[in-house]
Amino acid sequence: MAEMNTKAMYKLSYGLFVCTAVRDGRANGCIINTAIQVASEPNRISVAINKANFTHDMVKETGACNISVISQDATFDLFKHFGFQSGRDVDKFADYPKENYQQADNGIPYIVTGTNAYFSLKVVEAVDLGSHTLFICEPTFMTVLSDVPSVTYEYYQNNIKPKPEAVGTTPKGEIVWRCRICGYEWVGEELPDDFICPICKHPKADFEKVVR
Amino acid sequence: MAEMNTKAMYKLSYGLFVCTAVRDGRANGCIINTAIQVASEPNRISVAINKANFTHDMVKETGACNISVISQDATFDLFKHFGFQSGRDVDKFADYPKENYQQADNGIPYIVTGTNAYFSLKVVEAVDLGSHTLFICEPTFMTVLSDVPSVTYEYYQNNIKPKPEAVGTTPKGEIVWRCRICGYEWVGEELPDDFICPICKHPKADFEKVVR
Repeated sequence: MAEMNTKAMYKLSYGLFVCTAVRDGRANGCIINTAIQVASEPNRISVAINKANFTHDMVKETGACNISVISQDATFDLFKHFGFQSGRDVDKFADYPKENYQQADNGIPYIVTGTNAYFSLKVVEAVDLGSHTLFICEPTFMTVLSDVPSVTYEYYQNNIKPKPEAVGTTPKGEIVWRCRICGYEWVGEELPDDFICPICKHPKADFEKVVR
Repeated sequence: MAEMNTKAMYKLSYGLFVCTAVRDGRANGCIINTAIQVASEPNRISVAINKANFTHDMVKETGACNISVISQDATFDLFKHFGFQSGRDVDKFADYPKENYQQADNGIPYIVTGTNAYFSLKVVEAVDLGSHTLFICEPTFMTVLSDVPSVTYEYYQNNIKPKPEAVGTTPKGEIVWRCRICGYEWVGEELPDDFICPICKHPKADFEKVVR
């Protein structure tokens, strides 16, 4: 029997999106890669969100979110702002320039800079999948914002994410583990098995040992 | 209130896959665009399949399938063979060249020509979404087959699908409706509201009136 190669997971294609929600008057958003149409009659869009994300609980409790589709004119700052910090620690909309977002009819902001479309979604079913909840949603509104092509996860990796320097070992000769997803680096001999990236919440399997 | 623009649906990004299954010793496969990872602990891959597809019933009844990830070296013939004919009418593996596929340990064929990875999946939950069933699956095996990049749906539209001639009207001056998904053309004044593409099963919303 052939040996399993989990790098196959990287062959699946994804878009990238800002998922926004509002609870008790407080808005928040995170980066997700899982918005797709899963049925046509009726139209259903599925969205999987990691339970560790603050936005997850907001969508679960309110049953509503907006999905802004990230386009190729997005800068790395958009990913840093919504993906590399948590709404538990900072109010992401407090310091976010007002020209970068607008409020949809459902009362939830959507992003207008570095995006080409947005959807207002109403959750019709939530499937508990362990680390994530899969929200099956009805789109209540959608529109096109620009003609710039959508970003795929592959495009983000090749064209938007800054190339990290190959540090390999630190000046003290320690080993560096780098998250393939967001670039977070951890210094130490062996990454613990239950390690979760503090930035993007991905597990040890998504880290690589950096060799100079 | 702004007007809804359903062209936003085309901004969502997808890969393309051959989904294969076996029932009562008979193998079949169809083209799908919906295989993504939806949870990491445990690892879960979701696959949405249109109920009109013969493969849908096979996966539903057997609880197993393989997903072969289509890569940029795939020819249009692969899409025609698995996407533009139904297993109800033809045995897709009867005349399919034997060098193009192999049998996985789960007894189901996977495609080795024009693909870069494959997954063997076991269905753990099936969510009925009307036109489609969303299968939540556990990968029981996966491996990488090549380093050629995966095809996205956008890549298929721009680089693999033959450009149809702009017929606009027929010699008799009739109007032509063309399926944006597979290129199927229908001649007549007005496409019926309940029209379903006989090739790719997409609804009227995915047809465009062709104007010369």
